[in-house]
Amino acid sequence: MSNPRFKQLRRTYGFDEVAIVPGDVTINPDQIDIGFKIDNLAFAIPIIASAMDAVTDVNFAVRMSQVGGLAVLHLEGVQTRYDNPYEVLSAIAQAPQTEITALLQKIYAQPIKENLIGERIRAIKKGGTICAVSALPANTKNFAPLAAEAGADIFVVQSTVTTARHVSKSYRGLIFPELCQSVKIPIIVGNCVSYNTCLEIMRTGVSGILVGVGPGAACTTREVLGVGVPQITATIDCAAARDEYLRESGRYVPIITDGGFRKGGDLCKALVAGADAVMLGSIFAQAKEAPGLGYHWGMSHSHPALPRGTRIKVGSTGTLEQILFGPTSVTDGSQNLVGAIRTAMGVCGVSTIQEIHQVEMIVAPTIITEGKSWQISQSA
Amino acid sequence: MSNPRFKQLRRTYGFDEVAIVPGDVTINPDQIDIGFKIDNLAFAIPIIASAMDAVTDVNFAVRMSQVGGLAVLHLEGVQTRYDNPYEVLSAIAQAPQTEITALLQKIYAQPIKENLIGERIRAIKKGGTICAVSALPANTKNFAPLAAEAGADIFVVQSTVTTARHVSKSYRGLIFPELCQSVKIPIIVGNCVSYNTCLEIMRTGVSGILVGVGPGAACTTREVLGVGVPQITATIDCAAARDEYLRESGRYVPIITDGGFRKGGDLCKALVAGADAVMLGSIFAQAKEAPGLGYHWGMSHSHPALPRGTRIKVGSTGTLEQILFGPTSVTDGSQNLVGAIRTAMGVCGVSTIQEIHQVEMIVAPTIITEGKSWQISQSA
Amino acid sequence: MSNPRFKQLRRTYGFDEVAIVPGDVTINPDQIDIGFKIDNLAFAIPIIASAMDAVTDVNFAVRMSQVGGLAVLHLEGVQTRYDNPYEVLSAIAQAPQTEITALLQKIYAQPIKENLIGERIRAIKKGGTICAVSALPANTKNFAPLAAEAGADIFVVQSTVTTARHVSKSYRGLIFPELCQSVKIPIIVGNCVSYNTCLEIMRTGVSGILVGVGPGAACTTREVLGVGVPQITATIDCAAARDEYLRESGRYVPIITDGGFRKGGDLCKALVAGADAVMLGSIFAQAKEAPGLGYHWGMSHSHPALPRGTRIKVGSTGTLEQILFGPTSVTDGSQNLVGAIRTAMGVCGVSTIQEIHQVEMIVAPTIITEGKSWQISQSA
Amino acid sequence: MSNPRFKQLRRTYGFDEVAIVPGDVTINPDQIDIGFKIDNLAFAIPIIASAMDAVTDVNFAVRMSQVGGLAVLHLEGVQTRYDNPYEVLSAIAQAPQTEITALLQKIYAQPIKENLIGERIRAIKKGGTICAVSALPANTKNFAPLAAEAGADIFVVQSTVTTARHVSKSYRGLIFPELCQSVKIPIIVGNCVSYNTCLEIMRTGVSGILVGVGPGAACTTREVLGVGVPQITATIDCAAARDEYLRESGRYVPIITDGGFRKGGDLCKALVAGADAVMLGSIFAQAKEAPGLGYHWGMSHSHPALPRGTRIKVGSTGTLEQILFGPTSVTDGSQNLVGAIRTAMGVCGVSTIQEIHQVEMIVAPTIITEGKSWQISQSA
Repeated sequence: MSNPRFKQLRRTYGFDEVAIVPGDVTINPDQIDIGFKIDNLAFAIPIIASAMDAVTDVNFAVRMSQVGGLAVLHLEGVQTRYDNPYEVLSAIAQAPQTEITALLQKIYAQPIKENLIGERIRAIKKGGTICAVSALPANTKNFAPLAAEAGADIFVVQSTVTTARHVSKSYRGLIFPELCQSVKIPIIVGNCVSYNTCLEIMRTGVSGILVGVGPGAACTTREVLGVGVPQITATIDCAAARDEYLRESGRYVPIITDGGFRKGGDLCKALVAGADAVMLGSIFAQAKEAPGLGYHWGMSHSHPALPRGTRIKVGSTGTLEQILFGPTSVTDGSQNLVGAIRTAMGVCGVSTIQEIHQVEMIVAPTIITEGKSWQISQSA
Repeated sequence: MSNPRFKQLRRTYGFDEVAIVPGDVTINPDQIDIGFKIDNLAFAIPIIASAMDAVTDVNFAVRMSQVGGLAVLHLEGVQTRYDNPYEVLSAIAQAPQTEITALLQKIYAQPIKENLIGERIRAIKKGGTICAVSALPANTKNFAPLAAEAGADIFVVQSTVTTARHVSKSYRGLIFPELCQSVKIPIIVGNCVSYNTCLEIMRTGVSGILVGVGPGAACTTREVLGVGVPQITATIDCAAARDEYLRESGRYVPIITDGGFRKGGDLCKALVAGADAVMLGSIFAQAKEAPGLGYHWGMSHSHPALPRGTRIKVGSTGTLEQILFGPTSVTDGSQNLVGAIRTAMGVCGVSTIQEIHQVEMIVAPTIITEGKSWQISQSA
Repeated sequence: MSNPRFKQLRRTYGFDEVAIVPGDVTINPDQIDIGFKIDNLAFAIPIIASAMDAVTDVNFAVRMSQVGGLAVLHLEGVQTRYDNPYEVLSAIAQAPQTEITALLQKIYAQPIKENLIGERIRAIKKGGTICAVSALPANTKNFAPLAAEAGADIFVVQSTVTTARHVSKSYRGLIFPELCQSVKIPIIVGNCVSYNTCLEIMRTGVSGILVGVGPGAACTTREVLGVGVPQITATIDCAAARDEYLRESGRYVPIITDGGFRKGGDLCKALVAGADAVMLGSIFAQAKEAPGLGYHWGMSHSHPALPRGTRIKVGSTGTLEQILFGPTSVTDGSQNLVGAIRTAMGVCGVSTIQEIHQVEMIVAPTIITEGKSWQISQSA
Repeated sequence: MSNPRFKQLRRTYGFDEVAIVPGDVTINPDQIDIGFKIDNLAFAIPIIASAMDAVTDVNFAVRMSQVGGLAVLHLEGVQTRYDNPYEVLSAIAQAPQTEITALLQKIYAQPIKENLIGERIRAIKKGGTICAVSALPANTKNFAPLAAEAGADIFVVQSTVTTARHVSKSYRGLIFPELCQSVKIPIIVGNCVSYNTCLEIMRTGVSGILVGVGPGAACTTREVLGVGVPQITATIDCAAARDEYLRESGRYVPIITDGGFRKGGDLCKALVAGADAVMLGSIFAQAKEAPGLGYHWGMSHSHPALPRGTRIKVGSTGTLEQILFGPTSVTDGSQNLVGAIRTAMGVCGVSTIQEIHQVEMIVAPTIITEGKSWQISQSA
């Protein structure tokens, strides 16, 4: 049946298709450490807030760092285009649905004010916290030195798909080894999804990798381009690259699964698949402290003729504290994420993030059946 | 394609994905014995009611035992917290949906009255029947001797995930071999889902194992923690452990599949997968005799910051007699469960529970199509 | 991953999961013969109407035979319990939904009048046609000789699951070799779904096998007992038994796939899977000539405590002529079934039913997506 | 488990079940060439409009050719049956749903006026563009010479299933080698879906192959006949035949995937699967310039007793320019198709259509979950 002359297709898996197998030992929470490191920077919890205008502003970045996590401020969003970004954020939240696309296009057409880059970074650092900022590859050569100089601790170079090599007739691409040498703070690069690309980028000297391209079947990238890899498989493959790079270099470069998370179980699955940390957008956009005021939207527009992510109403369902540590006010698993990770590690019998990478995972597809509420009550 | 450097994922199966193949011989009901044993205690039917407040009270336990089955009374529910639990049960049934979470938290915050443990057990024994009670691991050391002294025949130690070993800095966990030696009644332990864990627990000397962690895709455990194994695979794996333990010890320890059942066909599938008996919650909560008064809810709250199972209206669809033996008043297969098991065994040509473990099972996924009612009429 | 100590599950397939691959040659309809034989009785079209009260009465049997097919009259339905069955059929069609179960129980509790058996058979034979009748195994010893004497050409012994061997303490089961020897007309037996059972029954000397137990996921047998095999796999397995029996005996015993059909494509798939003919219930219940008057219901009630198939409104969508030969008045593929078979054979490049068994079939699951109507328009 | 005596079924894949893996290199759009050739005719974009009355008329054909693509005019549609086809097209758009089937039957019963064949072709050529026309096999012998004489550049012979050999008692089929020799313009033939058929047809000397039979689960061909192959597998198989034919003959015959496309991602997937170009119907029927006036319908009726594709309202969502090149006015990925292809090639690191054939593709099924809008926002 299988004929080598035909193109072969590998089966891949997303969050909804897998489950975690409990361990042969259980461990008490007092034995569990969920911290991770980026170079020498240590974080108490393996959760990072996305570089999106609806999620991270100065205040949110300070709060995330204070509780042991991290939030990334996008240097190409409203925070660096507007002296008072909150007027603009309020306008986005109040615009009628029919006008939102035009409004977003207008808002992000404003030029970036380079002086605001330093200002925002200094404001975050004033909180006594770790400051991470991000830019697209095209702006990185300019912005990374500015950011480092202003005191940023981590610089994230992020585009939909990033590789170690970019071919162009018209300009010379960003060279990661040069960047890592010239800017003396940890560089995180993303997004990528495959073993080879991840390994190649690690070899350029970066300090972290963001994993995730078109993670869900309903992603814009997947719908419009057909491009994407489900997050469990992407994480498994990049984790294998990380382990290979550790063998060949002795250096441990964490991978951060980015995108597609909807609930605590998804975070635990990403960690079992091999992630060192996870990056969340929508879930944090629901925080009462989030600058999106209950809305979330796609801000990238590097291909102006392609459809944009539209504005989504996500609501403000709880405080950042509740989302991370509970008590939960919702039943959809989108709150008390840290509690979920610790409990999952307890029933899996592992006490560190690196141990959770060894836990067994199975293919256990979601089947939509009638009587779903029954199943819920049954398992309670 | 398959590369050993990447994490491998085993495919697993739930009730809705499998079906039973009829046998090469058919057997008349007069030849069929569906009984099973826990140590020397014999039961005529392989069906056990869950230790949940909406299902089992003294009366329900007496009735189940009289018809040849078993019901487990939870020693940490309303029956041991309240002298008159029926006031509380009535309050749960009448509370508006918006107040139910707070009400349940308040109700289960009341302390357990140890004198009620003996009182409930003696009331069940007065019916001349077999009495089974349960507790979480933390209370087992205290409650198990009290229960044995009061006349309980079986003690069930049950938590979401149980292993033979628990690691903690702060306290010494429950040691099953010590428990089995000190309490001279059969100990049933659960829940577990894997070959190794099941085998390890059997080796501690227990008399039965409950199988099932996050059985359905919509389970709270699966949603929030990502942890769970579909029930067919969990049962197959634990049945293999039981058979291995029988080979090495000569002792047959029954496994009881617990959770995720919605209809008669699911029970038959669990038995074919290797279960000796099944434990049902929701289906019995629908009995006219059930103390839940047509409602069902999750009562465990060992992790107060994680979301709780909410209260579900299941209705009171028939008597316990109808649910077990028919005649059925519904068309969803949730009644006449014993008739379903006997008929399935007849068409599979097997006459005992241990023979049904040998019947062929296939992967036959449920596909949701339009025109479903047609299929029903076609096959009638 | 795959461990022999664990129960293994074979993947099986139903109509909605497969598709037929067109051939390397196309054939004009003038080259195609879709006839099949049961012993020496030849039929121009490979389609048989079920032995159900909503489908087959004397008139329907005559009409089906005249057009080259066959219909089976059930000797335990209303036709042999009532001198004037049409009063009863009309009552079923007019009963409100809430009273239908009680009404059906009452109607089928009436005794069978043995004199009506001969009367109905003679009425069918008066049409100059081939007459087939059926009974459950329990009545076969009595009814088969009566039917043969009255002129029936074929006797069908049919129950949900039939094997060559039945074990009972209380009575001696039906012995097929004895039956085949004592009754000198072709005996068709069903239903079965597996290679071994089919081969064993063929070795008893029968002239045809009905294939199908719990074919669809929503079947009562599958829901209530968990028992069933999807029709494509059941047909493939029984076709392999037929071919093996032909090799060992030189005798070709046709297999007839029974149940689960919803449209023309399903018939073609059954034939490609290996069926020599198909047996349809629901689709014929939609004929203007059908005695069910636009309704369809399950009539078997051998297990009175198990849920019954309920009455379904199927409507009267076209004449028997339209259902078989078109022109079609509907767009769901439930009419012009013969045209569909001939066209499918044309594009597969095969000219006989036995050649269509060699056509390639693929696994091509139905995926439910939004924008379904688009797909329809695209392929038109 | 797998037994050679049973029929084996190969797993196949459609658009919604696969995804494209990004490459290890990214390429700038200025490096990308998406052109393809049919014999010596070069096209700047690999997109062809279907030979359907709702899509292609003279004006649409001229416009498509001007922008670098191609549109095929059907010589058996309203354009050659009516001097003024726009009256008829308007009647189709305005007919109530209940009368549409009868109206379409009446419209397509009108005879074809052979003089209109030349007239339409000359009108297209007057635009200074490449002209392609099509006919069913039965009319090809008559129409192909007429079309070539009138100046057509490409002739497409198209039916639901086409093979190199057709068997008939009553007439002599179309012989492709004879056709290719007698008509001195490139001949494109379709539709086919398998390696063998595709290879056989290529050996007859044709210049292109249309790939696609019953591509979607909801296709009429698949529903009514059970016949069809999902488009990804069909394209992979036919691409293997093209590559084999290139090895044996040195001649490169492009394959064109036809049918089932709903959005940009589907086009990219077809190209990765091995297509040289894609043929679109529904998507172009949505163009403001399309003659269908916002409707789309199936026009073939060679089997008058089989159900017809019905008329679908697709709406007029944008100009042809927008559909091909953006900017997009919709969010469903049905516009800016060229931009999607170029971007996908960029992130896959390939610069020609033949290089995209080497890109990795994975099985990544669409799972329908609640909270879909979340996934969209997450990936934006």
